This record gives sequence, structure tokens and C-alpha cells, in this order.
Amino acid sequence: MQLVAADVDQLTWRFDPPPTRRDPLIEDADRQENDENSDEGRQRSLGRRPPDAVNDEEFAGPGDETAFRKSGRITSHAVNPRLARLQPYPFERLGALLNGVRPPALSPIRLSIGEPQHPTPEFIRAALVANLDGLSTYPATAGLDQLRETIAAWFRRRFGLPRLDARTQVLPVNGSREALFAFAQAIVARSPAAPIVVCPNPFYQIYEGAALLAGAEPVFLNQTASNGFNLDLDSVADDQWQRTQLMYVCTPGNPTGRVLDLDGWRAIFDRADRHGFVIASDECYSEIYPDEQAAPLGGLEAAHRLGRDDFRNLVVFTSLSKRSNVPGLRSGGVAGDATLLEQFLLYRTYHGCAMNPAVQHASIAAWNDEAHVRDNRVRYRDKFAAVVPILEPAVKAHAPDASFYLWAMVPGGDDERFARELFAATHVTVLPGRYLARDAHGENPGSGYVRIALVPPTADCVEAAGRIMEFCR
Amino acid sequence: MQLVAADVDQLTWRFDPPPTRRDPLIEDADRQENDENSDEGRQRSLGRRPPDAVNDEEFAGPGDETAFRKSGRITSHAVNPRLARLQPYPFERLGALLNGVRPPALSPIRLSIGEPQHPTPEFIRAALVANLDGLSTYPATAGLDQLRETIAAWFRRRFGLPRLDARTQVLPVNGSREALFAFAQAIVARSPAAPIVVCPNPFYQIYEGAALLAGAEPVFLNQTASNGFNLDLDSVADDQWQRTQLMYVCTPGNPTGRVLDLDGWRAIFDRADRHGFVIASDECYSEIYPDEQAAPLGGLEAAHRLGRDDFRNLVVFTSLSKRSNVPGLRSGGVAGDATLLEQFLLYRTYHGCAMNPAVQHASIAAWNDEAHVRDNRVRYRDKFAAVVPILEPAVKAHAPDASFYLWAMVPGGDDERFARELFAATHVTVLPGRYLARDAHGENPGSGYVRIALVPPTADCVEAAGRIMEFCR
Repeated sequence: MQLVAADVDQLTWRFDPPPTRRDPLIEDADRQENDENSDEGRQRSLGRRPPDAVNDEEFAGPGDETAFRKSGRITSHAVNPRLARLQPYPFERLGALLNGVRPPALSPIRLSIGEPQHPTPEFIRAALVANLDGLSTYPATAGLDQLRETIAAWFRRRFGLPRLDARTQVLPVNGSREALFAFAQAIVARSPAAPIVVCPNPFYQIYEGAALLAGAEPVFLNQTASNGFNLDLDSVADDQWQRTQLMYVCTPGNPTGRVLDLDGWRAIFDRADRHGFVIASDECYSEIYPDEQAAPLGGLEAAHRLGRDDFRNLVVFTSLSKRSNVPGLRSGGVAGDATLLEQFLLYRTYHGCAMNPAVQHASIAAWNDEAHVRDNRVRYRDKFAAVVPILEPAVKAHAPDASFYLWAMVPGGDDERFARELFAATHVTVLPGRYLARDAHGENPGSGYVRIALVPPTADCVEAAGRIMEFCR
Repeated sequence: MQLVAADVDQLTWRFDPPPTRRDPLIEDADRQENDENSDEGRQRSLGRRPPDAVNDEEFAGPGDETAFRKSGRITSHAVNPRLARLQPYPFERLGALLNGVRPPALSPIRLSIGEPQHPTPEFIRAALVANLDGLSTYPATAGLDQLRETIAAWFRRRFGLPRLDARTQVLPVNGSREALFAFAQAIVARSPAAPIVVCPNPFYQIYEGAALLAGAEPVFLNQTASNGFNLDLDSVADDQWQRTQLMYVCTPGNPTGRVLDLDGWRAIFDRADRHGFVIASDECYSEIYPDEQAAPLGGLEAAHRLGRDDFRNLVVFTSLSKRSNVPGLRSGGVAGDATLLEQFLLYRTYHGCAMNPAVQHASIAAWNDEAHVRDNRVRYRDKFAAVVPILEPAVKAHAPDASFYLWAMVPGGDDERFARELFAATHVTVLPGRYLARDAHGENPGSGYVRIALVPPTADCVEAAGRIMEFCR
């Protein structure tokens, strides 16, 4: 198997290419199947060793390999050993699962990767082009005042906040992944008792990697049908909470689509106050929701409603990628506790992720407009309306509170087998839920589910749903 | 004093604004002097606490401050205590030095910040605009094959390398700062004996911050006139080399302009082999040099000439910012040891700094063209030719091997006093050398020098040189 270190919301791999993508790292499935063992296929792949390792031959080309062996490595400095604790990405595991499977000669439809595919609004592109003079100056890590003001105003409008200070409570970031990762590095302190980072389960793998690379132990809160996909805080022992320095929350949840309610937030705030940890709330799916009159509750909004207008111990992470269909722009924002953001800004001046000034201006344009975001929601709403009735009888897929995912229970209960056989029978790709979760509290809460991302055009989603329905008969 | 967390090659501050900058965070000096204590002045500043701390009043606005005090912080999670070990940035210290100084009514000329000011070539802007479709897709952390191939080809051409594998020995990065910082995090391992990161002294402050935040102790190699600004490896004890995990090299050096020669590289490679550490060579100034027939030696080139074609233990960091006058683009590249880059890529998939695809295409265009780089060098050459003869008698400034800096010994030997009095007399800003260095081996090797960045237009540089000459009479 040839893996490539491309990444969408996780690493992607050669067997599951997005049909619309131009990235030459990503090959189309048929081509891969024909040449997966050829030298040409190897040449085209990145040829790097994935975390779960292949042999050296696959790592470097034969020429380099020989040279390596001849020279011998006089020293081999061990890199940070925390890297060895990282888990394979879900898409690497999917690649291994589908390796060698020959799908039928139907058009491939990928519902596995959560990459938005609606077009980028023209006015965002225009704002970038109008501000190319920005290429000639170093940007500040804190971003332009105007960008911070714009992000703060968006948070205030969207979540009904009477106050959010652009000077101290907001920062721009180069997408939520970058920020979610860096935040853990800025927060987690070495301590005699191993520090803990609490994560939902299933979850976005960056939380776990951020915890491990910060030297912390990830501890999981299972979200299952039996607990209504809520976070059961009592499932983690008090002595573990006592060691907790950071808790990731994802609302709307990836992959469950579950939105945390006010009671859920109250319980988390209480716990954070009691045990002195920080909450990182990943809200990158917050703008994809079914009811125009019922936007998902956000963390800052919950804090405000509960009288915590200083947002103490809370930082919220958001992104333009899904909201504005600009996954390539690499732009998002964080907001919350000023004391934490002050330190996070200091960290970021070294971290070195100041945003391209032209990108900052494009972001300002995007945050200031809601019409395109409503249009975006209409598109997703149409897909859910068309697809859920077809799928529901087959895979127990009900529409999520929010996000563009269906978290669907598969017939037979074996998500890996379902995904592999579905691919073999229909050329439709979905992601086994167990790859998005870890064994914890005696179970893998992703097991038995698949994640279905309704990101392709509606016609493709409907076609895929029809094939899935047929397959399940 | 109001500090802003803008950063150029370091944090910048309100008293030393680049005249051409549009960033509203940066105010012009006269305006600052008039309102530095006013509420309006505060409102315009970012209002964050610098690392060397001011009181809470300066941190948040009065309203927020009251709210903070009323609510009390039930918990105050300590952020990563390594953050407290970070030093103030050179430009914060310069801000403090010039605080309250009233310059004369001459035009301000800033020679303190190393920000390129030549215009961005039109074809780079055009390549970005032609590839805006890239905003609609998630980029891979490893970048486009085409970008890696282009960077590899550039390294091969520029440094006469017979081989550099784009699949395994090259990665794109969002500027050299981001990469220099992240690399230390990916390399440095916890160890029973405190790990050491060796840095040149004087140096680019990111090396020190990267070391501290990775949990390592920075140890310094002084570069002084008495050692010809070379790296005296024997000045560090063997037991310290034994604990060394990473060594930063900067060639051409910031601020000395010194280029490491082949003997220097041989000594470093020997040491790295013997003690098993990794070399990070910051070469972001490599394309600014005086003799078109004598481009500075690079680390990969040195390795090749010394028969180390696997580049073991070496990773080189470069950037388009200075080469192509695109400091706002945030684009650079790293190349070297495939084993290290494999692990660095893995780290970077979590680190989350994939490059905007439109920026990748603009970068491809930039790396593929050398004509604009030669033009750029001509401009700097003209400045040095015009300025050095004026300055030389006054401040013992000789032209550097490479880079756009003059590392000038000041009359009287007190660099802080020189910089302050020069500003007070002429409105010309230079950076005291001691701010770029640390006390080590019984001295501060930056003391007695100022860094003069010849980045403004030639006429401004000449005007500034004349004022400095007058001041020194």
C-alpha cells in the first residue's frame, strides 16, 4: 500500500480520492488499482513511511536506499519519542481496509472525507485579489485590528454576546486544526502526575495527537446512543479530572453531529472550575445546521447565559473552511478567556503562524457576510432532505443536530466489513466509525457506525444513497 | 509603554513603525508620542501584556478589568510554565529604550527591522490570482508534488546538488519561522539530563524560544570580532555537546552577515556525528549577496562536497520572504535528511500548517524564476555601495558576506546609548546589538554593535547614513 501524507480533515490516502481534487498527490481510484505495485505508482506517491510503518524499501527510492545503507548512519538521533505514540490516521486505516478491493465499474462516490465541495463565493476571491499589496509586508501574529474586530463582531452577532473584546478576547488562526494543536502545546504543563487531556470519543484525531505531543495522556468520554451522544462526565474518575489540564469539546460534534446543550455546558463549566482545567471548544461545524431559526448553541453563548461573561477557562475555535467553503484559505478564529489568549498569543509569536495579509482581507469579507452562509445551509439541507429518507430504513441514519455528517448505524453491526463490502459492491466510500474512536470504558463507541459526509453534489449523494439502499437489501 | 504583538522578524512595537506599512496595529511615531497615555492610544494598541509584564490596567480595558475583579477567577489554570521562560523580544526592549525620547522633526527612518521593502514581482501576484480555485480544496501538509519538485530543483540548481529527492527530502513550510520553531518541537526529546539546543550568539530569537518551549536549555556559541564571527565549537564543553539534541546554524548570519565556510561545516558535521545531534541551518538570507559570481555556500552544498549526500542529521530552512520580496506570502521550504523530514512531516500533519493551494502556486512561480532575484540583489548592492563608504569611518561598518544587514561597531562601545541618542538626534532607528544576544562565556557578544538593516529605499538609506555620520562627528 502506498500512503500519502495528504490530509483533509485527516490524512487521506491514494485509494479514496476526492473526484474534484486537482492535487496530484491524490490519484483516482482506478488508476491506483492498476498501478499500486508499479514503480510508476510508487514514484507518484509521496513514498513516506506512515506511522504504522512499512519497510524501508517503500520509504525511499531504491537508489537512495542503497546510498543510505552504504553510508551507514553514524548517528541516528532519536526524534521526539512522543511521535511514536501517534495513532494511524483514520484514512490510513481505511486505505489498508480497501487495499486490493476491486470496486465495480460504477462512478466512485466518496462520502468518507469531510471536505466541503461547494464553490468558494466570488466576493471572497475578489477581496483577496484586491489586497495583494499585503504580500509585501510581514503580518502581525495578532492579525489586523480590522480582522480581530470583524471576528469579534461575528461572534457577538452569532451568539448574542453583549461584549467580546477584539483587543484581548479574539485571535485569528490559520484554520482550526493549527490552533487546536498549538493550544494544547501552550496550555499543558509538565507535572509529576501525568497530565490528562480529556477528549470526546469518537473524535477528531488532532485532539489526541495534540495531547500526546504535549506530553499528556488522552482520556476519553464516550458518546453513544445509550447516553444520547452526550458527554457523561461521571464516567471519568475524580482523580483523573484532578489531573486534567485541558478538555476538548466538539460541538456540533464530528462525527455525531450532536450539539451540546446548556445543561451540558453547565456541567462542563462546573467541572472545569472545580478541577482547574481549560476547555477548548471546537465549533468548526457550527454554521451547518438544518433549522434557520435554531442555530446551534456555542460555548461563548452558553458561558454568557450562565453569567460567565469573562469566558473563564474557555476558548472557542472556529473556521471559515466549512462556513464559507474556503478550506484552502486556511483561516479561522479563536475567542474566549483573555488571560489564556494572552499566553496563546505569546506562544504563537514563536509558533510563527501569522496570516498572509491578503488572506486576512479575504477573511474579513467572508466573516462580514451571512448571505452566502445561508445559501450554503440551503444546499446541505437539500441533501439531507433528499438522502435521509432513502437511507434511513437501511442504516438507521437520522439527520444530525448540525454538521454535514450522518452518523449511521450499520446493519450487522460491523462497520469495517460494511464499508469494505459497500465499496466492493457499489464504489461508494464511507468511513468506519471505529477508526474515529478509541477503546475506552470497555468499548469502541464508533464501532457499528459509519460516517457519511454529505459533501458531494446532491445528485451524487442521492445516487450513493440509492446504491447503499440496494446494497443493504 | 504600549506594546503590540505585531512581529516582523521579531515583535515590533509602536515606537518604531515601518513607514510603508498599512497595518493599523502600527502607528506612526509622532502620533504615538502624542497619545501614548491617552485612552485612545490604548484602544488602538493591542493592549496585551508583554512577557516582561506590566500591570493589569494595561492588559484589559477598564470595563473588562472591573468585570474580571468582580467575578474573581474561581480557577486560574497555569498555562505551560515554559512560556514564562521566554525573553522579551528585541523590539520590545527597543520600545522601552526609546520610550519618552522625542526625536527631531526629521522624517523617521527605520533601519531596525529586517523587513524587505522592495515590491513583490507582478508575476508572483499573477500566479496567485490564476490559482484561486485552490481556495476550494484542503491542501496536503506535504504540499503539491509540483511545489516539492520545484523547491527540490531550486536547491539542486542553487547549490549544485546532483540529487535531492522531492518525495522524501523536501517539504514546503509557511515561512522559515514557523518551520524553525516546529522542528525543535519535533526533534527534542525529554531526557533525564536536561536536553540542550545550541544556538549562535547573537541570533534570531526564535531559536531560543523554540528551545525553551521544547523543554531544552539553550547554550550559546559566541560570534565575535575576535573569533572572526566564526562558531567556536570548542567553547562548549564536551558534556554539554553530549546533551545536545539540536544545533541552530544561521548562514548568512543574522545579524553578522557571516557565511559559514566549508571548514566550518566540516567541524559542525563532525561534532553532530560524534554526539548524535541534529543541525537546523537557517539560510533565509542566502539569496542576498554582493558578488553575483560568489553565491554563499549552503548547508546541503557543504554536505555534498564533504560526501554526505544523504544529508544525515541536517535540515536546511529557507524562505521566499527576502529572496522574492513576499514577506506576506508566508512561504518557504526545508530540505535535507529524509529520516528527519519523514518525522517532521508526521509532526506537521498535527501541527496543521498546510499551505493555501493558491499560495503554493505563487510559490512555484517564485522559485522557478531567478531574474527577479538578481534584480533584488542589484538593489541591495546599490545600497551597500552608497551607504558603506559614508558610514564606515563613523561606525566601523564593513559590508557583510551576505544578507541586508550591517553589523556595525559603535563609537564609544555602548550600543543602547548610541541607538537612543541617535534616535533623539536624527530620528533614525537602529537596533542595539545586545538585544540580539545573551550573556554567555563572560560577555554579551552583541554589546557594542548595532544592527542596521538596509531595507528602505536607497535614498532613505543614504539620508540615514548621512545623519548617522553627522551624529558621530
